[in-house]
Amino acid sequence: MTTLYNDPAEFAEDQLAGFVDLYADRLRAVPGGVISHRGSEPIVAVVVGGGSGHYPAFAGLVGPGFASGAVVGNIFTSPSAAQVYSVAKAADQGRGVILTFGNYAGDVMNFGIAAERLRREGIDTRIVLVTDDVASSEIEEQRRGIAGDFTVFKALGAAAAAGADIDEVERLGRAANAATRTYGVAFSGCTMPGAVEPLFSVPDGHMGVGLGIHGEPGIHDAPLAPARDLAATLVDGILSARPSTDATRVAVIVNGLGTTKYEELFLLWNEIRPLLDTWGLTPVEPEVGELVTSLDMGGCSLTLTWLDDELESVWHADAYTPAYRKHTSAIAELRPATFGAAADDAADAPPPSPAGAAIAPVVAAGLTELQWVVRANEEELGRIDAVAGDGDHGRGMVKGADAAVHAVAQLEGAGPGWLLRCAGRAWAAEAGGTSGVLWGAGLEAAGAALGDDCAEYTPLHAVRAVDAYVSAIVELGRAELGDKTLLDSAIPFQRVLRDHVEAGHPLVDAWRAAAVTATSAAAATSLLSPKKGRARPLAEKSVGTPDAGATSFALIVEALGTLTVPTSPRKELR
Amino acid sequence: MTTLYNDPAEFAEDQLAGFVDLYADRLRAVPGGVISHRGSEPIVAVVVGGGSGHYPAFAGLVGPGFASGAVVGNIFTSPSAAQVYSVAKAADQGRGVILTFGNYAGDVMNFGIAAERLRREGIDTRIVLVTDDVASSEIEEQRRGIAGDFTVFKALGAAAAAGADIDEVERLGRAANAATRTYGVAFSGCTMPGAVEPLFSVPDGHMGVGLGIHGEPGIHDAPLAPARDLAATLVDGILSARPSTDATRVAVIVNGLGTTKYEELFLLWNEIRPLLDTWGLTPVEPEVGELVTSLDMGGCSLTLTWLDDELESVWHADAYTPAYRKHTSAIAELRPATFGAAADDAADAPPPSPAGAAIAPVVAAGLTELQWVVRANEEELGRIDAVAGDGDHGRGMVKGADAAVHAVAQLEGAGPGWLLRCAGRAWAAEAGGTSGVLWGAGLEAAGAALGDDCAEYTPLHAVRAVDAYVSAIVELGRAELGDKTLLDSAIPFQRVLRDHVEAGHPLVDAWRAAAVTATSAAAATSLLSPKKGRARPLAEKSVGTPDAGATSFALIVEALGTLTVPTSPRKELR
Repeated sequence: MTTLYNDPAEFAEDQLAGFVDLYADRLRAVPGGVISHRGSEPIVAVVVGGGSGHYPAFAGLVGPGFASGAVVGNIFTSPSAAQVYSVAKAADQGRGVILTFGNYAGDVMNFGIAAERLRREGIDTRIVLVTDDVASSEIEEQRRGIAGDFTVFKALGAAAAAGADIDEVERLGRAANAATRTYGVAFSGCTMPGAVEPLFSVPDGHMGVGLGIHGEPGIHDAPLAPARDLAATLVDGILSARPSTDATRVAVIVNGLGTTKYEELFLLWNEIRPLLDTWGLTPVEPEVGELVTSLDMGGCSLTLTWLDDELESVWHADAYTPAYRKHTSAIAELRPATFGAAADDAADAPPPSPAGAAIAPVVAAGLTELQWVVRANEEELGRIDAVAGDGDHGRGMVKGADAAVHAVAQLEGAGPGWLLRCAGRAWAAEAGGTSGVLWGAGLEAAGAALGDDCAEYTPLHAVRAVDAYVSAIVELGRAELGDKTLLDSAIPFQRVLRDHVEAGHPLVDAWRAAAVTATSAAAATSLLSPKKGRARPLAEKSVGTPDAGATSFALIVEALGTLTVPTSPRKELR
Repeated sequence: MTTLYNDPAEFAEDQLAGFVDLYADRLRAVPGGVISHRGSEPIVAVVVGGGSGHYPAFAGLVGPGFASGAVVGNIFTSPSAAQVYSVAKAADQGRGVILTFGNYAGDVMNFGIAAERLRREGIDTRIVLVTDDVASSEIEEQRRGIAGDFTVFKALGAAAAAGADIDEVERLGRAANAATRTYGVAFSGCTMPGAVEPLFSVPDGHMGVGLGIHGEPGIHDAPLAPARDLAATLVDGILSARPSTDATRVAVIVNGLGTTKYEELFLLWNEIRPLLDTWGLTPVEPEVGELVTSLDMGGCSLTLTWLDDELESVWHADAYTPAYRKHTSAIAELRPATFGAAADDAADAPPPSPAGAAIAPVVAAGLTELQWVVRANEEELGRIDAVAGDGDHGRGMVKGADAAVHAVAQLEGAGPGWLLRCAGRAWAAEAGGTSGVLWGAGLEAAGAALGDDCAEYTPLHAVRAVDAYVSAIVELGRAELGDKTLLDSAIPFQRVLRDHVEAGHPLVDAWRAAAVTATSAAAATSLLSPKKGRARPLAEKSVGTPDAGATSFALIVEALGTLTVPTSPRKELR
């Protein structure tokens, strides 16, 4: 959804005004677009352009080493011939003008008319079309220009910045286009400013294959695939139309269309990289990010440019524009850090007493039961947490429990204290977050209270372990009863357990009674307003929903109360 | 929607693997995160961190002039103490470590535990909390850290890079935090990898005020406002909690949360800038873009840091990280371009003949009628165009018609040819795009055919004007009948009009008959598959929907057929 505007019809002009103000130290507005401030020597002017809505394309690419000017049309609309003429005229430094843009009918006409007018005035003007989208046509010269714009513009800009004459700049740009292929997919449509519906939509669970960057839908829909399958689709799509060349070095762009974010693109690159290796292609300085977008469209594309020495040199060249900056000397002198490996605190489990050895499987089974119950409730815990928090509680508890059970499964012959120590450390290390550090410290403290070598384990040991768990959490979290945290069910549980055990009840009965109390105490937290943690500013929203940490604690102790002591731990869940 | 992943539970690790591969020339992975390669002199290590999902925060900010290392937790989840310890230990260069992060309970605990362990090992370790979110608490030290992370981290990194000792780096970081305020809003929630529902949602037409960057909803919902009102909300929100300082120079961040795009942020900056002026604040090197995100959340925030000389110097300093690069010498030697203004082709209207003067109001009225009809059909034309195109046809036609009518309203005493010439030029200049250049050229050609000084204007003049319109479009667009373009209704219209006029029918009857033909010819284009223009690759999707350009042509000639010649043109619609 495009959300920020005043008058939707003035979106393109208004955003350009803000952009020009921001970068007034290096470029200036002219009728129809922007031009870069000049260096000391005149160069061939590379003028890029097209509609708005593609940032960084096109105005974000104006600056040293890249474009000399950008013509800025309305959203997804070719600029007029008058705009092209105006920008090119202003950008011209006496060495001629290259007009370069993606192959769309409107752009071809408007830039073409402007070129004729510039030539009539004696300005040597050339046109370099970008035709990289292999999905758009079988015929090379009829293909649309999409993310390959970036590669071609950069080749032209680098050649111009190096002082080449217009024939040479044009030749290199055409060579870059001939060597460039892009294939892309769309996950969701984009919405024009002021519109309530997207320009197109992709059915749920699908992707549009062969996207356009003007909101054109894909050529056909296919089921949405995991990242590794998508990587194969993109690589195969490009290689089916590879240029005839012996080159094995390729410039790479993994381009995000707008709402497909950097972390997703890095993940995708991690899948593309080995596929290129398989095909004998060596990626050169890959660019992964948003380079040619389409408002808030979801989707991505892969671009490869097969490099000869000349094209590699322009790809490698420095540039400094609002949106794209490369300055290799800044990292040229760095040297790899040797890193001091964190001290390994693995140690051997102390041998348990016979009583410890007997109780250890119960502890292990309890952890497995805990893992079952948080997995079964992951979604609901996330939902509760999201009401006034960040919704990570279910996920965090599962990560921690998985790690704890996995760590315990690696141990042989450990006593109950050592099991809980290792479980707690694994939980804290893998789960992270607030619940991770608290549960990790709590379990480790409970393990220390139990020890491994008691001659006998009695119900009072369980009480002491729970006391240690609660104390560790109080100390770390610095919360009190009534702050709407896990302590609001853990402390009532602790009290009832102690009372019942001290009154002489069997541990299983005492535990179940305490669990009933924990469950009602957790439910009662919905009346509370949070005092601690990141939910604090959202106190009012939180009232009416129980605390996620108190709820998961209650679910866990309730489940543990139903545990019938098995002869061996349940199979680990991985 | 977060779309790209393999196993959602492994998202954080998988994306980090791709990131590390991409930037292997400048940083390396260590257990728990990444560290930067080192420069020639040892520096204080600034270790930033927090959960994943915030790119460029945190790993994207590692590099010369910024962070020495980043601890990378799971999505929206604090890293564990073991992760923090591991990264800090590896990043340490013997001059001590600053751990810096936003103020969240989980991070405070985990970084705190790690700091204790590092200190026990003799590594001087300091903690600098970021507490910039004024919406999160009345009490300064209890506030969350959001986009102000960037400012504080940069101050620390620049001071460290300059060789300062740990006391000095810590002092500057704390000063930056004390001088920094952020206020933000959310437009839409973010979705965790693998989840089908967003973590929260904002009601349609509303925004959540006081957003968090972990998917926490805003503190309250408010109606969505135009950009200029939102700018005031943000500036007022910050100034209500401004630090006590006489400084008037402010570092600025306008931060996008993920799906609020650059062009929207530039537009917002255009509204914020004058408000800062009003308050006597001078923005210094503002950063407008995505610096601290929250997966695919919609929303933005404004950050101000009140600068003294010391803070301005670290804000200004160069840096070179994967996501943030500043290298001021690249633009220091540029000089403003003088620009050759495009030749002004305004000229005086030639005086029309009496017949020309008499017919001019009819032409002007026709243009106004045209404007009415495209405005009335803007949405439907956009919808038709979006089926297999980019959906801009309605918007483009309205822009062009508005410009044409506005241009004509400025003229006095012009004849019919001059009116159409000016209308066509204004249309092409303002509307851009394919339809803009074609309609502009068509109207200008029609004007040339009509002229201004005929002794008499007959129905044959109208025929010749339509002929000239069609010829100009054929020449520019290089399309033929059957290519599914506007010619598929314009050419049948042209033929019927000529036949009827030559058969002696009155112009209005001939025109209406031709318009009927144009309308059915436009409808019949739904059977065609497009041959020209950007719809080409989407040929199959297009079948079943008429061509938008043919449709708008038919609507226009039909409306013109109903025109009763007024004595004066209708009032211009602006």
